[in-house]
Amino acid sequence: MSDQVAPTDTLYAVADFCLIPMGLPVPSVGPQIAECQRVLEKSGLEYKVGACGERGYGTNIEGPWDAVMTVIGECHRAVHAMGTPRIATDIRIGTRTDKSISSGGNDGKVKRVEEILASRS
Amino acid sequence: MSDQVAPTDTLYAVADFCLIPMGLPVPSVGPQIAECQRVLEKSGLEYKVGACGERGYGTNIEGPWDAVMTVIGECHRAVHAMGTPRIATDIRIGTRTDKSISSGGNDGKVKRVEEILASRS
Amino acid sequence: MSDQVAPTDTLYAVADFCLIPMGLPVPSVGPQIAECQRVLEKSGLEYKVGACGERGYGTNIEGPWDAVMTVIGECHRAVHAMGTPRIATDIRIGTRTDKSISSGGNDGKVKRVEEILASRS
Amino acid sequence: MSDQVAPTDTLYAVADFCLIPMGLPVPSVGPQIAECQRVLEKSGLEYKVGACGERGYGTNIEGPWDAVMTVIGECHRAVHAMGTPRIATDIRIGTRTDKSISSGGNDGKVKRVEEILASRS
Repeated sequence: MSDQVAPTDTLYAVADFCLIPMGLPVPSVGPQIAECQRVLEKSGLEYKVGACGERGYGTNIEGPWDAVMTVIGECHRAVHAMGTPRIATDIRIGTRTDKSISSGGNDGKVKRVEEILASRS
Repeated sequence: MSDQVAPTDTLYAVADFCLIPMGLPVPSVGPQIAECQRVLEKSGLEYKVGACGERGYGTNIEGPWDAVMTVIGECHRAVHAMGTPRIATDIRIGTRTDKSISSGGNDGKVKRVEEILASRS
Repeated sequence: MSDQVAPTDTLYAVADFCLIPMGLPVPSVGPQIAECQRVLEKSGLEYKVGACGERGYGTNIEGPWDAVMTVIGECHRAVHAMGTPRIATDIRIGTRTDKSISSGGNDGKVKRVEEILASRS
Repeated sequence: MSDQVAPTDTLYAVADFCLIPMGLPVPSVGPQIAECQRVLEKSGLEYKVGACGERGYGTNIEGPWDAVMTVIGECHRAVHAMGTPRIATDIRIGTRTDKSISSGGNDGKVKRVEEILASRS
């Protein structure tokens, strides 16, 4: 039934995730975050480090659904390999078929809100 | 560096996700949720429908990282194919290397908390 | 402008949250979860322990917005008081004005999906 | 037991939330987001609009736990008052007792990751 929608290896997705290492004796998680960022860099996908509350990590990443999800999984692997026994990640991910989001993405939305506010004040 | 950790096609993951259809003229999303459940059923993965706040949908699903993520992507495809222009999903997903979670998973954790509470009261 | 909508101390909310203690030398978080459950029990609000991926904790809770949020904050206080230096929580919360959700809530939604599936199979 | 931890009206929290209007016939949610931003502005709390995947809305906000949660509830009220029948919000919120996060917060964390990466390359 969903043949007319792009399969998951091409379905464009915009995501925002927070990866939280657990079972580490110190509350700060800078080294794990840095390791994850190296994985993101190698992926070739568009990403932007962001903070999301007092979480371990938050970043935006966009690209084809499968590629985005594999990269986040690779972050888990890399952080486990550093000796982290347990990882909990929260991912917000969106897709749309009404218009292309393959350019602009997260940045485009911030701009749009700013325009609406400017036009009303 | 992460060679000793299972690759993402075998890394066992326990997830909990909420899929929210957007751009529908009615606030109820029952048909979309039912469609998603059919996708889950076909996947062969272990899953359990759950509610997560006043969200569109919440369910637990577990299995290899890549398989879990592909199934959630297939839910997006199926719900888009029903005419939903935009979908926002929140996924909480966890992995661990200190012990096997390939059996028990979510159910095991609920039991463990109940034991701790019983032993203290 | 929002005067016709219930103020936050009476606006009915259905939530689902995961509390993750950080900076603990062990990956398991059973004692912290049990402590949080005692706080929920004392609150008098309707709640139900649930699992949400390999997260530290997941539960459903519903009631007036302010009451729900204060109870989750009390969980943070109680878990910090046990010696947890850092806590990250993910909350999914929903409200609606089109119909009452003050009875049924999460349970009602699961039933509705089951009905849709049954009627189609 | 949690007397030594700040009560929820002073416990400092750093949050990141996405508010998703449901039951609207159009997939774009710019006007609702703009309305929410006006509520944030009036609150006097520190906030920063951000995008979080293809979600309806994402922003960082920080301040005392109760104040942060009340403002998010006020956003729900304001968006309901515009005619939105149902709203689903995802909130990531963190607190810590090992060091003050009342200055720096989200911005401080991004800087710290950048420093770690710079020192290693």
